[in-house]
Amino acid sequence: MPKALGYAARHSFSRLKTIEFDRQEAGPDEVEIDVLFCGVCHSDIHQAENDWGNTVYPCVPGHEIVGRVIKAGSAVSRHKVGDLVGVGCMVDSCQQCGSCHDGLEQYCEGPNAFLATYNGPMKPAAMAKTGTNMYGRDNTYGGYSTSLTVKEIFVLKIPEGLSPDAAAPILCAGVTTYSPLRHWEVAAGDTVGIVGFGGLGDMAVKLAIAMGAEVTVFTTTKEKIAEAAKLGAKGVLQSDSEAMEALEATFDFILSTIPEGHKVDPFVPLLKRDGSYVAVGALAPMPGYSNQQLIMGRKTLGGSSIGGIAETQEVLDFCAEHGIAPDIQIIPIQEINEAYKQVKSGDVRFRYVIDMASLKQELVDA
Amino acid sequence: MPKALGYAARHSFSRLKTIEFDRQEAGPDEVEIDVLFCGVCHSDIHQAENDWGNTVYPCVPGHEIVGRVIKAGSAVSRHKVGDLVGVGCMVDSCQQCGSCHDGLEQYCEGPNAFLATYNGPMKPAAMAKTGTNMYGRDNTYGGYSTSLTVKEIFVLKIPEGLSPDAAAPILCAGVTTYSPLRHWEVAAGDTVGIVGFGGLGDMAVKLAIAMGAEVTVFTTTKEKIAEAAKLGAKGVLQSDSEAMEALEATFDFILSTIPEGHKVDPFVPLLKRDGSYVAVGALAPMPGYSNQQLIMGRKTLGGSSIGGIAETQEVLDFCAEHGIAPDIQIIPIQEINEAYKQVKSGDVRFRYVIDMASLKQELVDA
Repeated sequence: MPKALGYAARHSFSRLKTIEFDRQEAGPDEVEIDVLFCGVCHSDIHQAENDWGNTVYPCVPGHEIVGRVIKAGSAVSRHKVGDLVGVGCMVDSCQQCGSCHDGLEQYCEGPNAFLATYNGPMKPAAMAKTGTNMYGRDNTYGGYSTSLTVKEIFVLKIPEGLSPDAAAPILCAGVTTYSPLRHWEVAAGDTVGIVGFGGLGDMAVKLAIAMGAEVTVFTTTKEKIAEAAKLGAKGVLQSDSEAMEALEATFDFILSTIPEGHKVDPFVPLLKRDGSYVAVGALAPMPGYSNQQLIMGRKTLGGSSIGGIAETQEVLDFCAEHGIAPDIQIIPIQEINEAYKQVKSGDVRFRYVIDMASLKQELVDA
Repeated sequence: MPKALGYAARHSFSRLKTIEFDRQEAGPDEVEIDVLFCGVCHSDIHQAENDWGNTVYPCVPGHEIVGRVIKAGSAVSRHKVGDLVGVGCMVDSCQQCGSCHDGLEQYCEGPNAFLATYNGPMKPAAMAKTGTNMYGRDNTYGGYSTSLTVKEIFVLKIPEGLSPDAAAPILCAGVTTYSPLRHWEVAAGDTVGIVGFGGLGDMAVKLAIAMGAEVTVFTTTKEKIAEAAKLGAKGVLQSDSEAMEALEATFDFILSTIPEGHKVDPFVPLLKRDGSYVAVGALAPMPGYSNQQLIMGRKTLGGSSIGGIAETQEVLDFCAEHGIAPDIQIIPIQEINEAYKQVKSGDVRFRYVIDMASLKQELVDA
């Protein structure tokens, strides 16, 4: 079995440290990938610190993975050794249900839902109605590691024109914002609001502008208005009640990337009739809301989860075509705990991306 | 000016009593209607008792009006003297905005929104950005009256096959449930949930079944399960956690007719992927909700307001075609205060409809 080195949390309260483990041998339909870069997602922190109460330890986070194929199973046809590839949030799904057939594996209706790139099945045996685990694995180790082995159909092609480090965050932050923009049919000329301007908000603004939308960023930080302008978007302070009122009934779609529960009532009046406010980051309870506001314009509140495999390939290709890359800052893996602190406390606008050469160096040094 | 007799609330705390007032003379594009029947909507009570804090007194409620044309202006082409006609929740709108052009006058974006059948413009001068009232009327008197004068384009035709008394509730309860069922594209074979089983719920069940849907009623009252069965729907007690769990991810659409704020979290898990929970009755703050539940199935929470004029005609014709009539109980107007008590305290499954002959008798007796 291929040996791998990773960075893992052993407990909710502990810092991430080196871990050695075995990856499975690449089966006929699997590829083994040498990891080059891995993005740091806010979910990594939530999972490592057991914020959702479901973490399986040791926890090796990382689901924005870019690497090179170093081994391809006998039946593999999509990828070959040497290819630059990506792995996002999922490494398997039931492949039987309606959602899987529709290319929406993120909504897999199988007994265990999809197999997450780290932390195992979304519905482990204890949560499954069948009481079993079809994947046979209670835990999975993510991209904070030297290598991983994945079914080829869950492996994406990194198109030419995307640099491998900047491509990493597209695999989660990119597709998580792209998918709802497409599903709610944002089109050229539409007015789109983006609430929250961190890693997801950055991608959301770039993607919506590339789709031809007129984009406004809603932020609580005055400095971010200038940053929005650099991307070609307007910036509005949420606390500026005059500016907010002037925007009433002017938005076709508002995408919220705020990673916590938040009031929707200040934003719903900004939607036009039949407009939608979709929150992709708040895996958390939301406060109460005015249903009257929804009724008076047939408006909706929605949620959306990452994106399917086909759509993840689509957003990678879209970014290559439109010259879109997330703002990133490269770090060695040894700085991961410091990066977590920054993401949690600070108001980090860029995405941290781990250069996995720093981890491989530990093998050399050992 | 035509003299009219009505029943009005003078204060939020007073019982409805007789009022005499002038109706305007029918203009070239207006018809004068002799009122035969008027349904009693829960909104009538909310408005009479100033629950929304915007009531203009005296308040003559009633927006489920069926009557006969007794005078037609010189330019009137759609209706003629003797026609059986209906008037719903609106008697005018700006006729200029996108929503009016789309036949969705209930979402009129004009400075004063639509002119309600009673209580005047939805946005009176004080609420309008222009600070004016384009309708020139601060109050309107509804259907608890002997007659009313309305622009012909806001007057509906009561099709043959509908009895005039039973047609009345279709003008509000009917279109309020029909409109979202159509907008969210409920089709034959769909599974539809109806939450709350009063006047709106009754119509919602009948309409959804006529559209070919498989309908389940969610109720808090055990006795209503048998009543749902009579209409051809399943009935489920919301408190039956086992039954609720068994229905997880089985509904395409859930329509809530509950007339107050209520938790949506027990119902969202019952929706399939991309399903919507739409609440039409709750003109009130809703409690907090789990956004994670929305995310995990790309689900939406929505609202919907009555229906446009074209759609109101559509639902009247649909009911005639499918032999649908609301369950009603006819009362003389002198019993209106007692009926309000019943609707408020009791669990009234049918719709009260006032026979306006009882009011005209007061004129004879006077």
